[in-house]
Amino acid sequence: MPFSRISRNLRGAFNGCRCYLSIRDHNHRFLLSQTPIDSTQQVMRSLIFSKGIPAFYSSRYQIHHQSSSLVEDELDPFSLVADELLHIGNKLREMVVAEVPKLASAAEYFFKMGVEGKRFRPTVLLLMSTALNLPIPPVLPPMELGGATRNDLRSRQQRIAEITEMIHVASLLHDDVLDDAVTRRGRGSLNFVMGNKLAVLAGDFLLSRACVTLASLKNTEVVSLLAKVVEHLVTGEVMQMTTTSDQRCSMEYYMEKTYYKTASLISNSCKAIAILAGQTTEVAVLAFEYGKNLVCEFVDLRFIGLAFQLIDDVLDFTGTSASLGKGSLSDIQHGIVTAPILFAMEEFPQLRTIVEEGFEKTENVNIALDYLGKSRGIQKTRELAVKHATLAAEAIDSLPESDDEDVRKSRKALVELTQIVITRTK
Amino acid sequence: MPFSRISRNLRGAFNGCRCYLSIRDHNHRFLLSQTPIDSTQQVMRSLIFSKGIPAFYSSRYQIHHQSSSLVEDELDPFSLVADELLHIGNKLREMVVAEVPKLASAAEYFFKMGVEGKRFRPTVLLLMSTALNLPIPPVLPPMELGGATRNDLRSRQQRIAEITEMIHVASLLHDDVLDDAVTRRGRGSLNFVMGNKLAVLAGDFLLSRACVTLASLKNTEVVSLLAKVVEHLVTGEVMQMTTTSDQRCSMEYYMEKTYYKTASLISNSCKAIAILAGQTTEVAVLAFEYGKNLVCEFVDLRFIGLAFQLIDDVLDFTGTSASLGKGSLSDIQHGIVTAPILFAMEEFPQLRTIVEEGFEKTENVNIALDYLGKSRGIQKTRELAVKHATLAAEAIDSLPESDDEDVRKSRKALVELTQIVITRTK
Repeated sequence: MPFSRISRNLRGAFNGCRCYLSIRDHNHRFLLSQTPIDSTQQVMRSLIFSKGIPAFYSSRYQIHHQSSSLVEDELDPFSLVADELLHIGNKLREMVVAEVPKLASAAEYFFKMGVEGKRFRPTVLLLMSTALNLPIPPVLPPMELGGATRNDLRSRQQRIAEITEMIHVASLLHDDVLDDAVTRRGRGSLNFVMGNKLAVLAGDFLLSRACVTLASLKNTEVVSLLAKVVEHLVTGEVMQMTTTSDQRCSMEYYMEKTYYKTASLISNSCKAIAILAGQTTEVAVLAFEYGKNLVCEFVDLRFIGLAFQLIDDVLDFTGTSASLGKGSLSDIQHGIVTAPILFAMEEFPQLRTIVEEGFEKTENVNIALDYLGKSRGIQKTRELAVKHATLAAEAIDSLPESDDEDVRKSRKALVELTQIVITRTK
Repeated sequence: MPFSRISRNLRGAFNGCRCYLSIRDHNHRFLLSQTPIDSTQQVMRSLIFSKGIPAFYSSRYQIHHQSSSLVEDELDPFSLVADELLHIGNKLREMVVAEVPKLASAAEYFFKMGVEGKRFRPTVLLLMSTALNLPIPPVLPPMELGGATRNDLRSRQQRIAEITEMIHVASLLHDDVLDDAVTRRGRGSLNFVMGNKLAVLAGDFLLSRACVTLASLKNTEVVSLLAKVVEHLVTGEVMQMTTTSDQRCSMEYYMEKTYYKTASLISNSCKAIAILAGQTTEVAVLAFEYGKNLVCEFVDLRFIGLAFQLIDDVLDFTGTSASLGKGSLSDIQHGIVTAPILFAMEEFPQLRTIVEEGFEKTENVNIALDYLGKSRGIQKTRELAVKHATLAAEAIDSLPESDDEDVRKSRKALVELTQIVITRTK
């Protein structure tokens, strides 16, 4: 297999993207460059995104943005809510340790100080809480706010962030069991370290705890919304586990699975934040759209990263395909049939046979990567990411105007999170 | 090990119970006899109780009751709600098949016609629904009934029965994974037949489906109640998995674990039935007490059955303890430290050392059974079962009076379910 050709093709595809993309008529432009890392890039690099969200921290693909409205007033979205994140982190830890001490070593595994990641989801939800700190419409039925004062409201919105994190970690624990994963967030996965049983039970515990916390909000609409999310996570996992060869080649199926497995949680949680604040349906839908498109953007970026990673893995080996270990092949099988390959298939229909055959045969991996290199698959995926970023930012821009400084700052930070383009610094 | 002594001791203990127990001042008396099986006994024999509830069907220990108020008007609690049970069974099957076809083979496993058991829990809940068909107190806030008509109310109560069955089956699926169980309801367990992964996922699916159905009831009190149940199930499983040797010898710990693992689900579901009907707190508490004591009674009976089963297993072998297979030993380890042994330990404190040592050593099993035979452990457990039965029946007797024929019949059927005493027919 001509590895040099893969390399050349892909680098070609990559270089083809070194230009400004101006598909938005807002102030946000996307620059693909190899310029030095700026402060947002630093922030994003330090993010340890988990499954479904790009693992930038361990990736070689750095992030850079340039947005005229933000350059002069750079915001670190994470530092804006740092204190609250700390508070939520402490609450999650306390909850696990205090209620079922024996499960502490298992469930605390994910909430331990220093290894819990940057809390991407809580950050988005807390920023959204402030961003929607609008005057509450007077027609709001009193029940839904439960007579909440502003402080009460914030603590209820914080609970949404906690619930989201618990559901997320519960699903990771069970997914790792289902995938026989051996690592997670740079260390041994819980199932690998403590066994499948404890991982299943810890997941069940977090899920049950999330249900109890959710019920304590006493808002039937929010309960329905997040109960549906739990079902979506399972549905997405089932779709993944039972994909037919036809479905593997379907962009529609891929998009649907991505929504269920990854985007539903954050988009519906964003919507829940709006509902708790007593906002209108229109505002709730904008919050939902922001969450959905932000996550879809990150998934796209993750899969671009994954495509490059696969190429690198192949290149790192000395030319013998056989030296790709079982683990790598399994990653490829899980990861390869994503947006870049699906786009490549549109250009090269003969790739379909390879994808349908699967990647048990190592030569199929090489052939698929070769086609990927020749195609516009990676570029089209990048364009999709940009489109998702644009839609997410537009959702924020469409919110009712506010003169409140905190509201404006939080909205800027949410837009900041969308201003991400990947580039290859290496 | 003198097996004949075990046998003699246990038969002695058993014979000592062949008398009327008159610990209730109601019309309900309990007869322990070896008389022929009556119609209730037939019903109970045909019950395939699952984990936590006695597996009478496969047990050699028959059930017999004599209650002056019921002999003249024998009721089959199951036939009273047969049509609705069929309807609920169909709904559960349809739900699993229609929504995630790929998961059908897994989750349907438990809802397949003919193997779904007698639906003990839905039966109790439907009977409770009719039993509480009281005039609704006028002070009831309109929100909680959601403007429900009588038919709406019944269909909402049916949903509680469905939710309860889904939560129950979900917990069975995960428990079987945790216990490495190979059989369930007389056939291969799902994890054994289709693997742990599918069993975990099927359990997650049912639990998520239960959450969505629960949320659709739009009653925050009921949501809180059943969310807590899910947490209790996990807590009970954690307690079981992480028991210290001190806790193994504690009756209090044992009772708490039994409540979490087994009694919480049905007792809180009974309470939910009352809450949906808009009944007073007092009535809701009586419904809860009925459910709790009924299940505790059945657990007691199950463990008496289990104690006899263990003895029989030992007696069935040819005298060499070594011929007890790994499976049997594992059952003993899981099952032996239950009420009968804990009561025996009160009489023979030296048994504690054996229990603390565990049952890895086969001779410890023999010694423990020997002590059990010499003690009043089984009789005391039976008395505890009778006490629970009494309390359950008293809860029903304490409900506000009603002249409605259906209400009276359902209450009778609920009391009928408590009128169980085990006897050994063999």
